[in-house]
Amino acid sequence: MGAAPAGVEWIAVDWGTTNLRAWAMQGEQVLAAAAEPLGMGGLAKNQFEPALLKTVGGWLTEGSVTPVVACGMVGARQGWIEAPYVSVPSPPHSADAFCRAATSDTRVAVTIVHGMSQADPADVMRGEETQIAGLLALRPGFSGLACLPGTHTKWAVVADGAVQSFRTFMTGELYGLAVAQSVLRHSVAGPDGYDDAAFDEAVAEIAADPAGLAARLFSTRASGLLRGMAAPAARSRISGLLVGLEVAAMQAAWSNAPVVLIGASAVSASYRRALTLLGAPQTEVLEADLCSLAGLAAARKLIG
Amino acid sequence: MGAAPAGVEWIAVDWGTTNLRAWAMQGEQVLAAAAEPLGMGGLAKNQFEPALLKTVGGWLTEGSVTPVVACGMVGARQGWIEAPYVSVPSPPHSADAFCRAATSDTRVAVTIVHGMSQADPADVMRGEETQIAGLLALRPGFSGLACLPGTHTKWAVVADGAVQSFRTFMTGELYGLAVAQSVLRHSVAGPDGYDDAAFDEAVAEIAADPAGLAARLFSTRASGLLRGMAAPAARSRISGLLVGLEVAAMQAAWSNAPVVLIGASAVSASYRRALTLLGAPQTEVLEADLCSLAGLAAARKLIG
Repeated sequence: MGAAPAGVEWIAVDWGTTNLRAWAMQGEQVLAAAAEPLGMGGLAKNQFEPALLKTVGGWLTEGSVTPVVACGMVGARQGWIEAPYVSVPSPPHSADAFCRAATSDTRVAVTIVHGMSQADPADVMRGEETQIAGLLALRPGFSGLACLPGTHTKWAVVADGAVQSFRTFMTGELYGLAVAQSVLRHSVAGPDGYDDAAFDEAVAEIAADPAGLAARLFSTRASGLLRGMAAPAARSRISGLLVGLEVAAMQAAWSNAPVVLIGASAVSASYRRALTLLGAPQTEVLEADLCSLAGLAAARKLIG
Repeated sequence: MGAAPAGVEWIAVDWGTTNLRAWAMQGEQVLAAAAEPLGMGGLAKNQFEPALLKTVGGWLTEGSVTPVVACGMVGARQGWIEAPYVSVPSPPHSADAFCRAATSDTRVAVTIVHGMSQADPADVMRGEETQIAGLLALRPGFSGLACLPGTHTKWAVVADGAVQSFRTFMTGELYGLAVAQSVLRHSVAGPDGYDDAAFDEAVAEIAADPAGLAARLFSTRASGLLRGMAAPAARSRISGLLVGLEVAAMQAAWSNAPVVLIGASAVSASYRRALTLLGAPQTEVLEADLCSLAGLAAARKLIG
């Protein structure tokens, strides 16, 4: 963690299933950052406070209380405490649905941000609402689609400062299972790398025949057996089929609205490529951490 | 294995990735059956003959040679010997592409049936060609679609005694990964059983929005979190989404042709249900083993 930074006013925490990431903040300025593999998935109820203190303890001051604002799966039923889901349509943050997590250490005051839900079609998010709050802080008045690529990619319709509706695609998880666990693992065993032409071809194919997904995935394996398709081409083809299918499903939404992609650069680049190929008029990429931090800062202001 | 049956003329073998199944035959009559978990996937080259003898040794007669006809993954590159792929269009069996596997035991003469391939879209099959040969033996002159549900479901266009084209969907494998390995495993944890209404609803949903697959799969999880969807309904919904998507992809083929389903009864029943829901005019189910045996008998006649 290094030397304790001076002037820490509050601590921003993005606490997901796998990792705990924290930033020592002065206003909206980052003074220091820390990360530990202490995600919600591996912690019992009584392990959350020790995990937090292990990560941010060096930033605390004896005799004063530092506010901590956390978002993500830390607020799930299996998390530290269960923060409610706020139903859409709603602004991404509602301070009256934030939760306080009790601590025995009096140097911190921990607030956990709620998630969001949608009744029909049934859907849920935790953590992405804070990135959307960050988007609205960075682009005041934004109206359009926020796409947050990941294991479970979210597409949110944002207008009038609120999330109007959203849709989650488990595309990233399907990709991971396909390349690691299915017969397609033989097709991607080989040299690293990607093949843009194979990605583009797959996006066009699946947009023209969305129902054919399970056949077009299998044909990747058959192309390996019959024509020796290389691993980079196979990897990009599988990605193109799955990302292309998802982007095609959202066509009605993005054809008339700007899209902001919020996510890790490589995966956002794939989504942006597919959007452009299928004719999306306007796409922009925002870095995920930038949005998370802006959203956590917005949450802190709401707490007052 | 019990007492050796009298009058064994030949032995039929269906040798897949996981299992070796064999039948002692007199003409087209089954005298005895045996099965061992000695599939191609677990055997080195020099273990195929011992595996066969372990399974059928009791049916052999000292001093005479019993023909053995085997189909399936035993003929793959990783199998006993590699049998070629015959390109479509072609009759399901071409005797000149059958292969002899050498044995040190002189009581058997082993023939391995070839597979089939298609250049564009790239596709392969091994074992299903023999079930299609069985279909043609059981329904001479059949013209229409043969659907062989399984881990990798095949749809074959059959006309003029030949396989004209075919398409493989890895639907069964995707279903297995989704319910065992993905976030959806939480949704199917609970009471056994299926829910026909949930299946039917999912088939209709996905046929109307095929590109939405990854979102509609995830909504199963969200329905569990928000509305307590029961495990049987979740299981049937996931099945209905995946099977419905596949059946929708084949609509142009089945809307004008009879469909014969060849497969295990439960999975064939799901496909038949989806076909009927989406408007297929004519479907029939044939038992898979019946077709395999009829196909292996047809192969034996070709060998002469």
